[in-house]
Amino acid sequence: MPATNRLITLTTDFGVTDHYVGTMKGVIYSINPEARIVDVCNSVQSFDILDGALTIEQAYGYFPSETIHMVIVDPGVGSARRPILAITARYVFIAPDNGVLSLVFAREKRLKVRHITASHYFLQPVSQTFHGRDIFAAVAGHLSKGVEPAKFGEEITDFQRFIMPKAKEIAPGQIKGAIIRVDKFGNLVTNLKPEDAPALKDAARFQLTLGKHPITKLATSYSQGAANEVFLILGSMGYFEIASNRGSAARICGANRGAEFVLAIG
Amino acid sequence: MPATNRLITLTTDFGVTDHYVGTMKGVIYSINPEARIVDVCNSVQSFDILDGALTIEQAYGYFPSETIHMVIVDPGVGSARRPILAITARYVFIAPDNGVLSLVFAREKRLKVRHITASHYFLQPVSQTFHGRDIFAAVAGHLSKGVEPAKFGEEITDFQRFIMPKAKEIAPGQIKGAIIRVDKFGNLVTNLKPEDAPALKDAARFQLTLGKHPITKLATSYSQGAANEVFLILGSMGYFEIASNRGSAARICGANRGAEFVLAIG
Amino acid sequence: MPATNRLITLTTDFGVTDHYVGTMKGVIYSINPEARIVDVCNSVQSFDILDGALTIEQAYGYFPSETIHMVIVDPGVGSARRPILAITARYVFIAPDNGVLSLVFAREKRLKVRHITASHYFLQPVSQTFHGRDIFAAVAGHLSKGVEPAKFGEEITDFQRFIMPKAKEIAPGQIKGAIIRVDKFGNLVTNLKPEDAPALKDAARFQLTLGKHPITKLATSYSQGAANEVFLILGSMGYFEIASNRGSAARICGANRGAEFVLAIG
Repeated sequence: MPATNRLITLTTDFGVTDHYVGTMKGVIYSINPEARIVDVCNSVQSFDILDGALTIEQAYGYFPSETIHMVIVDPGVGSARRPILAITARYVFIAPDNGVLSLVFAREKRLKVRHITASHYFLQPVSQTFHGRDIFAAVAGHLSKGVEPAKFGEEITDFQRFIMPKAKEIAPGQIKGAIIRVDKFGNLVTNLKPEDAPALKDAARFQLTLGKHPITKLATSYSQGAANEVFLILGSMGYFEIASNRGSAARICGANRGAEFVLAIG
Repeated sequence: MPATNRLITLTTDFGVTDHYVGTMKGVIYSINPEARIVDVCNSVQSFDILDGALTIEQAYGYFPSETIHMVIVDPGVGSARRPILAITARYVFIAPDNGVLSLVFAREKRLKVRHITASHYFLQPVSQTFHGRDIFAAVAGHLSKGVEPAKFGEEITDFQRFIMPKAKEIAPGQIKGAIIRVDKFGNLVTNLKPEDAPALKDAARFQLTLGKHPITKLATSYSQGAANEVFLILGSMGYFEIASNRGSAARICGANRGAEFVLAIG
Repeated sequence: MPATNRLITLTTDFGVTDHYVGTMKGVIYSINPEARIVDVCNSVQSFDILDGALTIEQAYGYFPSETIHMVIVDPGVGSARRPILAITARYVFIAPDNGVLSLVFAREKRLKVRHITASHYFLQPVSQTFHGRDIFAAVAGHLSKGVEPAKFGEEITDFQRFIMPKAKEIAPGQIKGAIIRVDKFGNLVTNLKPEDAPALKDAARFQLTLGKHPITKLATSYSQGAANEVFLILGSMGYFEIASNRGSAARICGANRGAEFVLAIG
């Protein structure tokens, strides 16, 4: 597709009740009237870098090559935290340097990160509280028109990144993990991947204990659960999820993000 | 418009707080970079096939011919329920075979339904829990590029459909009905159509009883109501609604979807 | 860009849980298949003309020239209130004549307002409750195809407008103001602008009292605040905001829109 027609995606915590996201789109279209903008999710939990990191991790790879991904979860706006560009084999990311791209970085072998400093591309005056509009959207607009990433600033290597806590074995056959997301349906997404518990697949018995709720069933579709039953299922994010058939496992279990569990196999 | 430029609409219960909808759009754009995607509503009540059916029924006919409508409310994902294509005179629908298209079927005379089986069009591996991404979005992408519906699978006639319960006369001049939707404003949409109660229009008196709330006024605009008054009005969905002027009838009446009422005329 | 390719933006209180916004987009695309539609915000507070006015005021100027802005917060739908077009130097606005464009009018020197009466452009029959679909979207579609504003109706000068209450000095060094918006993050946007309190910038001391909460700190970035501390910051809307670092000032202060405060400087 023509350079000016690249997709720009938005992953932000700006919500849907204010003008913030619409204003950012206006800035982009004013710079590049041919831009095509797609919302990934603008309801990331407020200030929640991990939630933003998980959201973009799950979505970005499904977009066409050359897509520009904006990831603006930015509690440090106006402070010394840097705006960055991250260039991978297929995409360009625009984000604050606060770790929100950590899970992208963990997946990408070819990676170059630049500190955005070319303020002549910014909207002036730059506000103290809305760099999504004044810096990030403006940079996205210019990038989508074909301005080279190198024009926005120098390469850096000391960018922020965090390692997502993995589920781990705490005793033979005992794995400790945590809930990393509660989705719209009330599914409790764990940090447990199939490779973290290879024995689970063929185990005659297992018990996952979350608060007072023992879970002993592994399903392959939500519809295998009885009413109000909670069970384990391999979710589309690549992690096991605690779920319920046509119900909210979060409500049934009274569990939230951060809740820990122990899985005992056999 | 060119075949590759057909509109694709989304009606889902995937919500706005996760990556689900954004990921589906990524899949579509990766298959057809020229696609144009429009959200009808992604906040259908979770697992709620009737709510999804009403949503698409209200919106689909306003779109241009050739639009592809995706309707993904899919509590049976991963089970034996089939993915289907429904082809009407003007549109193509993509949905799980669980009745979510019932109200479309009820309006359409020319209708052909196909069981989607051509798995070479799917994203592989197909997950257990997110066919919106792995099957439905992929099929929409290929359809929008001009792949013929017949390429996706054989015609079937035993697809699921439900009949929406109608308001009905239970005694002379007495009609029993139910609330089928509560909208964002708190309007209580009933299943009562003008033809279900032809005498209402010119009735000297009527009383609709919803819980403890007798309603005796028929308005032609919301602004005819006093503060906290609830009244009947013919809504834009073609049903009578119980409404309040600048207020929520649902809150005033303490009523939810499924609540029953009796209308006595004269 | 070609006339048929003008952007159309949506600012409404129709929400994201119903078919309303999707249906309006269908109407627009059916009239102008080349239309490009952008959501500014569809979650304006229900029936809340001030909230709608603030939303469009903040966003509209960032869009390209020729953009058509629809602003549909319309509690008087179906009554005698008029549908209007407002033509400014760079934009066209479509709205009900209820004051929702007041803050746009306050910013624009060149302004012409027309009463939309050309009902042959409307969807027929026009419903009593959804002019967003039957009138406003239809008019936007035709406008975006190049129909001249003058074709839709006669110019009027008696359109509705309100003056936003300003923060004002009630005693030397004492300014009374109010909260005009609570944003998604819980920031309390005040009606206080830097020019309303020029002494604030260099004041050795000040105290803003909101309920039982004295605020004595002026920050230049959110991250300067300690946990649960509330402070004043100049926000991106041009007003001072009461905010908290990674927290909700609204929750900490227990304050809502309309809450009044007194600012004492020195």
